[in-house]
Amino acid sequence: MSGWSHRHVLDLASFSVDDFATVLALAQRFRALPVSGARKLPALQGRLMTSLFFEPSTRTRSSFELAARRLSADVQSFSPSSSSLSKGESLLDTARTYVAMGADILVVRHRCAAVPRALARDLEAAGERVAVLNAGDGLHSHPSQGLLDLFTLARHFDPAAPGPAALAGRRIVIVGDVLHSRVARSNLWALTACGADVVLCGPPTLVPDLFADFTAAPPPGQSLDPVARRGRVTVERSLDRALPGADAVMTLRLQKERMRQHLLTSLDTYHRLYGLSQRRMALCGRPVPLLHPGPVNRGVELAGDLLDDPSLSLVDEQVRNGIPVRMALLYLLAAGEAAAASTGA
Amino acid sequence: MSGWSHRHVLDLASFSVDDFATVLALAQRFRALPVSGARKLPALQGRLMTSLFFEPSTRTRSSFELAARRLSADVQSFSPSSSSLSKGESLLDTARTYVAMGADILVVRHRCAAVPRALARDLEAAGERVAVLNAGDGLHSHPSQGLLDLFTLARHFDPAAPGPAALAGRRIVIVGDVLHSRVARSNLWALTACGADVVLCGPPTLVPDLFADFTAAPPPGQSLDPVARRGRVTVERSLDRALPGADAVMTLRLQKERMRQHLLTSLDTYHRLYGLSQRRMALCGRPVPLLHPGPVNRGVELAGDLLDDPSLSLVDEQVRNGIPVRMALLYLLAAGEAAAASTGA
Amino acid sequence: MSGWSHRHVLDLASFSVDDFATVLALAQRFRALPVSGARKLPALQGRLMTSLFFEPSTRTRSSFELAARRLSADVQSFSPSSSSLSKGESLLDTARTYVAMGADILVVRHRCAAVPRALARDLEAAGERVAVLNAGDGLHSHPSQGLLDLFTLARHFDPAAPGPAALAGRRIVIVGDVLHSRVARSNLWALTACGADVVLCGPPTLVPDLFADFTAAPPPGQSLDPVARRGRVTVERSLDRALPGADAVMTLRLQKERMRQHLLTSLDTYHRLYGLSQRRMALCGRPVPLLHPGPVNRGVELAGDLLDDPSLSLVDEQVRNGIPVRMALLYLLAAGEAAAASTGA
Repeated sequence: MSGWSHRHVLDLASFSVDDFATVLALAQRFRALPVSGARKLPALQGRLMTSLFFEPSTRTRSSFELAARRLSADVQSFSPSSSSLSKGESLLDTARTYVAMGADILVVRHRCAAVPRALARDLEAAGERVAVLNAGDGLHSHPSQGLLDLFTLARHFDPAAPGPAALAGRRIVIVGDVLHSRVARSNLWALTACGADVVLCGPPTLVPDLFADFTAAPPPGQSLDPVARRGRVTVERSLDRALPGADAVMTLRLQKERMRQHLLTSLDTYHRLYGLSQRRMALCGRPVPLLHPGPVNRGVELAGDLLDDPSLSLVDEQVRNGIPVRMALLYLLAAGEAAAASTGA
Repeated sequence: MSGWSHRHVLDLASFSVDDFATVLALAQRFRALPVSGARKLPALQGRLMTSLFFEPSTRTRSSFELAARRLSADVQSFSPSSSSLSKGESLLDTARTYVAMGADILVVRHRCAAVPRALARDLEAAGERVAVLNAGDGLHSHPSQGLLDLFTLARHFDPAAPGPAALAGRRIVIVGDVLHSRVARSNLWALTACGADVVLCGPPTLVPDLFADFTAAPPPGQSLDPVARRGRVTVERSLDRALPGADAVMTLRLQKERMRQHLLTSLDTYHRLYGLSQRRMALCGRPVPLLHPGPVNRGVELAGDLLDDPSLSLVDEQVRNGIPVRMALLYLLAAGEAAAASTGA
Repeated sequence: MSGWSHRHVLDLASFSVDDFATVLALAQRFRALPVSGARKLPALQGRLMTSLFFEPSTRTRSSFELAARRLSADVQSFSPSSSSLSKGESLLDTARTYVAMGADILVVRHRCAAVPRALARDLEAAGERVAVLNAGDGLHSHPSQGLLDLFTLARHFDPAAPGPAALAGRRIVIVGDVLHSRVARSNLWALTACGADVVLCGPPTLVPDLFADFTAAPPPGQSLDPVARRGRVTVERSLDRALPGADAVMTLRLQKERMRQHLLTSLDTYHRLYGLSQRRMALCGRPVPLLHPGPVNRGVELAGDLLDDPSLSLVDEQVRNGIPVRMALLYLLAAGEAAAASTGA
């Protein structure tokens, strides 16, 4: 944990290679603990993690809550329905209410980008010591998903030492609706930081050309890129040209409303051009793993039999790795907060 | 627990008399523990029970969750609203997600019969070790309810030794909408296995004649009946002929939509013909207990004052017994799973 | 706790000065425990608190649940959606179901006044030992809010000894929609019992004249006032006349539907006449604290910059104090229940 300096986790553009190494090393330790029958780790005993999911997501919220409980933290869930938001309360006031109840870490999901960052800033300004963990904000970022994807790939490439070095020089193909995906954006920062080259593949409506420059400069509000040398990002329209030589393929969920928005002509056409199948995967030249952030539209992004093939699909493994990765983040934020408290910061 | 061999609990047609004896004996042990002030049993420490209630039911879910917590298990709840199902994910993919998060036991409720069985089969095929516990599927089965009813009756007839023998030769009258009741079906398998004779009473639209043969052969998909000799099932249209000589009466919830389906002329007529009251219960010849799976429509299935008479109504006792019976099932499934794990099965 | 004799907590009209002193002293003890990093108090280990929120409220329910968990109690939540209520079950039957599952304390919120009292009465009549804690019923009462407001004021006036005496002779101004506020009613009983004088301020549609006599006699159903000498209650229409000399100001949430009910002409007019601001607060003659039960309509009841001024606003402090005050109530009810059990009462 030497060098960990993040008071919040808002995106992955601000992560150094050491930051990625720290998270992966901790996740690997937590992953090694037996999932069942184990005694809980007392690390976060008496700490309170509050999940504020303004956009619902049973899956991600469950994963965070399990991670918190495995570290013996208390867990509190805010449900936007049946809440004060409908009574006109501001987002910040809602968050402050939960902070006043004792929340040490707020895990925040919101359909608007930058809400977690704004909350973190306003809570700091109000003198609160709480840490904010972005669990997905608009199209901006989903850092815990990016990290669990990174961890899953690192474990695949180097099971014994799943650190950033395991990714160096790999060719990772990301297929699909990159434009509307906060997962893809988080993966771009994470993968290139570790030296992987990323090939983005999809039609121009879903993968605009300018994504080739996505990691060329830090995002607005961040002056410096903490990573000296990133892997390359390229855009490729044809899956048949993207796949040969790939070390791993990641496909993204396709929201069906994209068709109503005229970004797609039909799901069938999409599947024919960009859907993954056993046959398509063979173009890689050798068996390479497939990732998907879930939930999957079978028969759209990928063929069902590919998803069900444990020799290729890492989808269940991604879900499994979500727990130790989120444990690592909660642990680091709680430790940072304790350090801040002890130095009066 | 000698002889317990169920990897899942899907229905009660596959339960041997020894299986019923095992559950009742464990439930009796758990029932004897003080409900309040007690320290938790560590039996399922570190295990994860996930409730997947695709059909909502606060009452049954709460009972399972309390049972799990009393055994020190972790509990995770899937809520179908705000979930990935609305995003087109398949049921099996949803279940696999929760299994990947570490679920040891899935408690599944679904409005379609056989969903729990299909999930159990598909998860086994995928090499998963998780146990599936049916918490109610369509009109098919509700095994934990059948077992808590059995336990409640056994405790009534023989408080000191509430085993299957306590039921032998008893005449149990089940009144009401048997056709649409998974509870009645589960009770038929449980009661007749223990040697009780069951009288089904209701109009032909709600109690078709063919129910007299319900336990004559195992259900589709099961080749052998594990019970050598079952009690008899008879159908009786008149409550006045059904009640004399009864040892216990069980009445079922009447869904009000049955009227719109023209299965009933009116609630008043139903109450006059099949509603239970103090006067009606007197036909049994002596005070006998009354059961109802809840929630009750007062004034339809039974008169309010009968429900409130603690000398006759076992309804609260049924709810109370739900906890130790569900503890027994979770305990047996977790133990079975541990045994399977240790033998590499 | 000498003298504590409440089996339920239904309103504050029945609280003696000793009762208030008991709650405040316990809350002060619980407040002194570190919020984070602390080990849980084992006081309510094995006890079950069930929240029955027929009217939704994430905030109050969360506060009760955290309070229960800090005392090591088990927590069960009833959600009215997805529940048996929609199946026609009576309120009492729902409550009895949860009591049968082992609830020791029912925390009840309902939009109809007197539901908690009716439940308490009916459950007692049925021989149940469960305690009922009113978490807000219609316009009647919200005792835990009244107590946390009292505790917050007492700590402000006398941090070292925040007992009832800290309130004696204080002038507390309550501004806003008193007529529709159970919080205001609870505060009236609590504040006057401790010897504070209360000034109610608002238009006649929201603060009828007869509120001046509110504490003159115990409420219907209670024969005696347990408080020998209460502080005075006065009604004042003008905020400019109400504020000078105030020791604290409490403002209430304004439901926007009051306008549709023609009780208000416009929110702007309301804010001009009764909204609080830094300028208005200066009329008090010196810096005095501001309270609000939340959630706040910024720019209606009060100006945002006033809410955000930590030198004046006690709103976060109220939320924070909710936990130890509710811990105190749960502790007292569980202890009372244990005493009742041991004497066979």
